[in-house]
Amino acid sequence: MDSPATTKKSGLRNGSEEITCDSQAGPDSCCLSLKNGVVQPLLTDLYQITMAYAYWKNGKMKDHAVFDLFFRRNPFHGEFTIFAGLEECLKFLDKFRYTDSDIEYLRSTMPTSVEPEFFDFLKSLTANDILLYAVEEGSVVFPRVPLLRVEGPLIMVQLLETTLLNLVNFASLMATNAARYRMVAGKSVSLLEFGLRRAQGPDGGLSASKYSYIGGFDGTSNVLAGKLYGIPVKGTHAHSYIISYDSFDDLHTKTLAHKITREEMNILTLSCKYRDQIASDVGAIASEASEGELAAFISYAVAFPDGFMALVDTYDVKRSGFLNFCAVALALHDIGYTAIGIRIDSGDLAYLSQAAREIFSKITKKFDLPWFAKLTIVASNDINEETIVSLNEQNHRIDCFGIGTNLVTCQKQPALGCVYKLVEINNQPRIKLSQEVEKVTIPDRKAAYRLYGADGHALIDLIQRFEEDAPEVGQKILCRHPFEEAKRAYVIPSKVESLHKLYWKNGKIVHELPSILEIKNRVKESLATLRPDIKRKLNPTPYKVSVSESLYNYFHDLWLRSAPIGELV
Amino acid sequence: MDSPATTKKSGLRNGSEEITCDSQAGPDSCCLSLKNGVVQPLLTDLYQITMAYAYWKNGKMKDHAVFDLFFRRNPFHGEFTIFAGLEECLKFLDKFRYTDSDIEYLRSTMPTSVEPEFFDFLKSLTANDILLYAVEEGSVVFPRVPLLRVEGPLIMVQLLETTLLNLVNFASLMATNAARYRMVAGKSVSLLEFGLRRAQGPDGGLSASKYSYIGGFDGTSNVLAGKLYGIPVKGTHAHSYIISYDSFDDLHTKTLAHKITREEMNILTLSCKYRDQIASDVGAIASEASEGELAAFISYAVAFPDGFMALVDTYDVKRSGFLNFCAVALALHDIGYTAIGIRIDSGDLAYLSQAAREIFSKITKKFDLPWFAKLTIVASNDINEETIVSLNEQNHRIDCFGIGTNLVTCQKQPALGCVYKLVEINNQPRIKLSQEVEKVTIPDRKAAYRLYGADGHALIDLIQRFEEDAPEVGQKILCRHPFEEAKRAYVIPSKVESLHKLYWKNGKIVHELPSILEIKNRVKESLATLRPDIKRKLNPTPYKVSVSESLYNYFHDLWLRSAPIGELV
Repeated sequence: MDSPATTKKSGLRNGSEEITCDSQAGPDSCCLSLKNGVVQPLLTDLYQITMAYAYWKNGKMKDHAVFDLFFRRNPFHGEFTIFAGLEECLKFLDKFRYTDSDIEYLRSTMPTSVEPEFFDFLKSLTANDILLYAVEEGSVVFPRVPLLRVEGPLIMVQLLETTLLNLVNFASLMATNAARYRMVAGKSVSLLEFGLRRAQGPDGGLSASKYSYIGGFDGTSNVLAGKLYGIPVKGTHAHSYIISYDSFDDLHTKTLAHKITREEMNILTLSCKYRDQIASDVGAIASEASEGELAAFISYAVAFPDGFMALVDTYDVKRSGFLNFCAVALALHDIGYTAIGIRIDSGDLAYLSQAAREIFSKITKKFDLPWFAKLTIVASNDINEETIVSLNEQNHRIDCFGIGTNLVTCQKQPALGCVYKLVEINNQPRIKLSQEVEKVTIPDRKAAYRLYGADGHALIDLIQRFEEDAPEVGQKILCRHPFEEAKRAYVIPSKVESLHKLYWKNGKIVHELPSILEIKNRVKESLATLRPDIKRKLNPTPYKVSVSESLYNYFHDLWLRSAPIGELV
Repeated sequence: MDSPATTKKSGLRNGSEEITCDSQAGPDSCCLSLKNGVVQPLLTDLYQITMAYAYWKNGKMKDHAVFDLFFRRNPFHGEFTIFAGLEECLKFLDKFRYTDSDIEYLRSTMPTSVEPEFFDFLKSLTANDILLYAVEEGSVVFPRVPLLRVEGPLIMVQLLETTLLNLVNFASLMATNAARYRMVAGKSVSLLEFGLRRAQGPDGGLSASKYSYIGGFDGTSNVLAGKLYGIPVKGTHAHSYIISYDSFDDLHTKTLAHKITREEMNILTLSCKYRDQIASDVGAIASEASEGELAAFISYAVAFPDGFMALVDTYDVKRSGFLNFCAVALALHDIGYTAIGIRIDSGDLAYLSQAAREIFSKITKKFDLPWFAKLTIVASNDINEETIVSLNEQNHRIDCFGIGTNLVTCQKQPALGCVYKLVEINNQPRIKLSQEVEKVTIPDRKAAYRLYGADGHALIDLIQRFEEDAPEVGQKILCRHPFEEAKRAYVIPSKVESLHKLYWKNGKIVHELPSILEIKNRVKESLATLRPDIKRKLNPTPYKVSVSESLYNYFHDLWLRSAPIGELV
């Protein structure tokens, strides 16, 4: 009832044999939201298409528009955001084309009064006449600074809205979330993304892996993300692996060839010998430890002698897991291999990591094996930013966190409120008013700069009218609060960075795209330019985003003129 | 450091020209997480593959396993969940095959010590030997009842874990969320999903559209969801459309042909005439209303004369939007068309909807147009369950809610904690212990039944050992709490429903799959069998899930035997 459009209930799959995804359309539409790895242009809100028709019908095909994509508030109660998703946006522009089956669908969906020539027009649309300016992917960004500025034919620029928002919103949110985890965890701890099973759908999981890596994680459990993006993938075994072994009878292979000599050695016998030998050091009783767990560890060590990492909490970490792990690690050592470490997936992670470290130190002393004290301890049970802060306070001894649900769903704030606003049409500025001052948009085609101080820290972002001269190093620049007249400051920058680069012109990507590793480094470098008080978790200082004197006056004049008569604004 | 596996940093895209998604691999890998509309088997955690190798290496290729997929707690502080995602799981099984490029990637990722024959083994894997039992998609389900029971070769059943969880988790969460919105909104209100721009990535958006429709929504703004699933799509225009018009000069077309007579009539003149005529009824002043807004409305009405729905809050709802809308609606009426209504996207929605309804009634009386009082009012500003409850209390006059962020990200709880647990191997039961009793899994291959009372309401779910006879209508059945010995009840069911059906056998879907509309109806019917106190928003009554006497004893014996010696369980 909201719309002129109603759909035929066509293409519904029914029955067990026919499970192609779109029986009407050709193979081109068989990838749901993606076609050849790129988002399809039909992944948009219907109102973009109805607006396109209304514009077309009213002869606005040649109108030229400028839209800004930006957000109004940093996520997670923080004071910074990492911009990400740009490469996906550019791929989307590159492949933007309605297919014949798209057009057929739209024709069947829109009212019959829509003129047939409109569909020919849609069919011919490409992003060739679009200009896209953007902040560099991986940069730290702030409210109201345009992340993208999209210029071109009104209809086309409008049609891009929903998809660009979809591609930037979650990517930026995810990268920001990951960067926050990295900051609380510190540099010396390894962070792994383990969230695929709880992510919001298949691509939700894939995006989470990609952008958490960009934001500061070291790897993922997601194999496809490894394959597609070259991200390091990690993983060993689950509780089900451990409980699938009941006793030593389940061990089909009990020997392992020595790494150097290739002599076959009995890893079961060795493990049992060490288990008896170290039980009292570990504070456990050999006969009480789980035999199935030991069998599982041995079988895994036989499969991955150079990669023995054991999940130690299936039965009882202190009575069974630690002892069985150390026994197998010592047996492996006799066979020429060095174990990696343990994973703890439940219980008091601070306490258990300290207990493990203590045991590892005892073994180091007892057998004079320095590497044993340095074995890796991975923790992975429902971890979020707050857990890490608390574990830090308790002096945990964890080397690596595996983080799932809270990271990949961005539990604390599952959406970044990016918007896409018309700021200029046919060289005339446009302003969107709102009773909430914060929601009034800054009109006009704009440039944005970041001004740096002598110590290398970013001081302030400055938004100007596009025609204004760029701010210059060493010159005094008046920076004004965009809304509050009394708030203003003079800044003398030691360095000026232009935030927008032209990425798309004449139907081509015109700026070299960084690799995923370069984007990851950009995040690190960009965050390093922020003062610590802006990045801190508790009550961070807001970073200032200002407008030039000229833009301020232009903006506020227009605001006054646009307000309905008699309205106090 | 968590893993034996490290990856080559290959396949990174760099430069502006080369933007295929996986330059190493053939076109088969070009759809990111999806291949021919189906999730790829590599969308999994690496540990599934490392476990597969360790199982293989230890000769466990023929081990036969049973896994249950279930959740432990209903989401959103509620007491029910809607099960969804089954069709996607079956499509995944149907297409399960590692491609050559998958195998190449795994070979390059896993340690060189992995025996080459393992990759041949992986290459030959299919889901042909798997049995999949499931609850019917769209059913209301409860904690601990297996949603899926997957049986077959241990390695293969284990390999399915992450992907099945990914496919069920978000689908079920989303359908449940939508069903909750439907319940608070009531049956007479229309609900539209508007969340694509804030969803967690492209597929996050697509899944949100599909499963919110299944859960009880009436349509979506997502065009691709309309095309792929046959969901009704809705939408009109955005604020940018309104502000792209500045004055009547922007109107290229000022006439519209009468619906019946085809006589060209001047809609601008008519609209201006009505605007003057009704301004005082609307409580506005014609000269103060926005001319740009009126121009935008007229242009939209010309494009969609049968589908005129206007966004009225761009400038000022009461001083401008209402008046301009009514003027154009009356003009359209003279030209033979009936307007649809208005959308309000900001402000006090209860108050504004009442104000709009009052104005519509006045117009009805003034011009004797009964339909005017019944025009549709759509509201769409950051709406969640609580907003709707509050609007209900304020006697809103809204006919339709457009709901975005809070719906599609499941803001209140962005993940359903589904798990996938080994419960039997080679006909031996398996139990996963935990210090949290709630996390102990119920072992054994199990059947599940729903027992109904004489009034048609569901009384209790009963989980049994698979070998036990099904409960019978009219027979007294002892139902026991799975963990608490003292909690037990006798139930005499008037109807018994077996919850699990066999969906997959011999590599084929063996149970007819319902259409999306049938699943949607299943949700409605299934929810109708729940007592209202279980469904209510505030302090709902938990629905009981029980185990049979035989399963209780079997389970608790095993639990006792599995506990480490000396441990109090």
